[in-house]
Amino acid sequence: MNSFPNEYLVSKEADYDLIITGNMAKKQVVVGIDIGGTNTVFGIVDREGNILAEDRIKTTHYDEIEVFVAALYEKIILTSQKIKEDIELIGFGIGAPMGNINKGTIEHPAGLPWKGIIPLADIFSRHTALPVVVTNDANAAAVGEMIYGGAKGMKDFVVITLGTGLGSGFVVDGKLVYGNDGFAGEIGHTAIRPGPSNRECGCGRKGCLETYVSATGLKRTLLKVMADSIQPSELRKYSFEELDAEIIHQAAKRGDIIARRAFEHTGMMLGFKLADVVAHTNPEAIFLFGGLALAKELIFEPAEIYMKENLLHIYKDKVKLLPSELSTQNAAVLGASSLIWSLKKD
Amino acid sequence: MNSFPNEYLVSKEADYDLIITGNMAKKQVVVGIDIGGTNTVFGIVDREGNILAEDRIKTTHYDEIEVFVAALYEKIILTSQKIKEDIELIGFGIGAPMGNINKGTIEHPAGLPWKGIIPLADIFSRHTALPVVVTNDANAAAVGEMIYGGAKGMKDFVVITLGTGLGSGFVVDGKLVYGNDGFAGEIGHTAIRPGPSNRECGCGRKGCLETYVSATGLKRTLLKVMADSIQPSELRKYSFEELDAEIIHQAAKRGDIIARRAFEHTGMMLGFKLADVVAHTNPEAIFLFGGLALAKELIFEPAEIYMKENLLHIYKDKVKLLPSELSTQNAAVLGASSLIWSLKKD
Repeated sequence: MNSFPNEYLVSKEADYDLIITGNMAKKQVVVGIDIGGTNTVFGIVDREGNILAEDRIKTTHYDEIEVFVAALYEKIILTSQKIKEDIELIGFGIGAPMGNINKGTIEHPAGLPWKGIIPLADIFSRHTALPVVVTNDANAAAVGEMIYGGAKGMKDFVVITLGTGLGSGFVVDGKLVYGNDGFAGEIGHTAIRPGPSNRECGCGRKGCLETYVSATGLKRTLLKVMADSIQPSELRKYSFEELDAEIIHQAAKRGDIIARRAFEHTGMMLGFKLADVVAHTNPEAIFLFGGLALAKELIFEPAEIYMKENLLHIYKDKVKLLPSELSTQNAAVLGASSLIWSLKKD
Repeated sequence: MNSFPNEYLVSKEADYDLIITGNMAKKQVVVGIDIGGTNTVFGIVDREGNILAEDRIKTTHYDEIEVFVAALYEKIILTSQKIKEDIELIGFGIGAPMGNINKGTIEHPAGLPWKGIIPLADIFSRHTALPVVVTNDANAAAVGEMIYGGAKGMKDFVVITLGTGLGSGFVVDGKLVYGNDGFAGEIGHTAIRPGPSNRECGCGRKGCLETYVSATGLKRTLLKVMADSIQPSELRKYSFEELDAEIIHQAAKRGDIIARRAFEHTGMMLGFKLADVVAHTNPEAIFLFGGLALAKELIFEPAEIYMKENLLHIYKDKVKLLPSELSTQNAAVLGASSLIWSLKKD
């Protein structure tokens, strides 16, 4: 008969295993948290990606990170108690701007109330002994795609998130690429058109991919197309500030030529860059996620054409360009929650 | 007392373990093989990277891959028998153009006598039950740097090989990135200057990095600088065919302005691209290997300046640009041999 020494049973790792293996009657769930500039949204999520409960707190209400975390944790526990099923909470995954997965920090996040390098996982861990993982939203989306979405069973793929900016997450051999400093996957800030006369980027450089391929990039391209063309367009009545990707998308669907050209150029720039991305890690697929990806063939068609045209011959017809299978609405929470499930694979 | 069933002991894996663990008195060695267009060079290498014996056969003498492999294997065994130490051979690592590490194949290799997709590892394994690993020279160089060179102890780094072309190998979390098709790390064929009027590349595309950053790229740049400038230069007496990187290097060392400008432009293009490479996998260091890297500050200085200038702020002052610590002469053999040692880490 086997007998284990007591100290083994009471160690943290053993506890964790005990929870996972010892209570099969309970439904295991994780908490996915998406910290945004205005709201912090969270969900309690099962292994299949069902959100059993969700709620939010106002990020902007909390000047102090410790108070924010305490309030957030309290709200999560209250929310979890409303779930009627018998659940077993096994960890917290947090997606946040400039989230560093190596250190559990968020570092100089633009648009959040807290400055400097914030040891978020450590602060969170004052409230719980369960695993707490922090990363940025694009990395979370990549893991989410692997755990719940279209990348199930894939070992090598890339997720590109197309929002106000452009984020990316790389998965190599079934694992998210962290990088030496925890900041892998910033291809939004690689050069698509180098040169001093090129588009200014918020990062201080010029010609970055996200100045072309993002909701903002689409708007910027639209203005240029409009300036160069004499075609009539319903979009000529909008100011830059009034415009958004959805307005341009709807105009393009109605056949507006200026809007269509702006999408085509955006997709072309994306496809061109994706051919280069493939030459780094040779992924099986690239998933597009976010607002712009919802424009479907308006963005996918030119992206696919230009990617294929520019791929090195050894990659031709081997890389799939696919829409994310996570719903845009829940993706940030699902992505964050998936970080915990991904730990269990090791 | 433990007793194992016989079929376990005779399985391949068990044999392998037995060799590794069972003969500690013998010195473990691996064979590193570098298949080149003219010669195939091999060495018998210990864990510290000492080449105990080496020899070569003429690649061009063998129209049939099976005959080539049989002759090579025979020569290796004869050579190993000349070593006076008591050695235990534990595997064969092979570097070859278009070597595919996932499949053990070489696929449509330009410049080798054999066509199509060649199942090299399988053919080799007809002669031995030991592990046989095949990859390309840049991937082999990356693993070689990790096992014997400057990347010992590093988990995330990139090796760039600067020869006639430009190769690259990525290591993420201590493992070589293979990619879904076994062809990760072809950044020589990413765009540095996109556009139809740009430099033609041997791959059929235009504006690829290696058309600028390689021995050939340096020659091409030199011609352009020479055309644009009225500066005198000792290089004006050379034809394109007569020129090579070493001639340009020597001229630059003597202060030839045209040669220096060509190097500066080459380093600039490299530095610019490296800033983008960092944004993919966030490496701790990038190693430069091969002929051009031997030009030291002529290539490192501009590369470092332009890399730093173009790095996204989160990476600034965090990424080292370093010369390879493998000697150019033995690197191909060492790199190939290192593939076998890297298997043992798992």
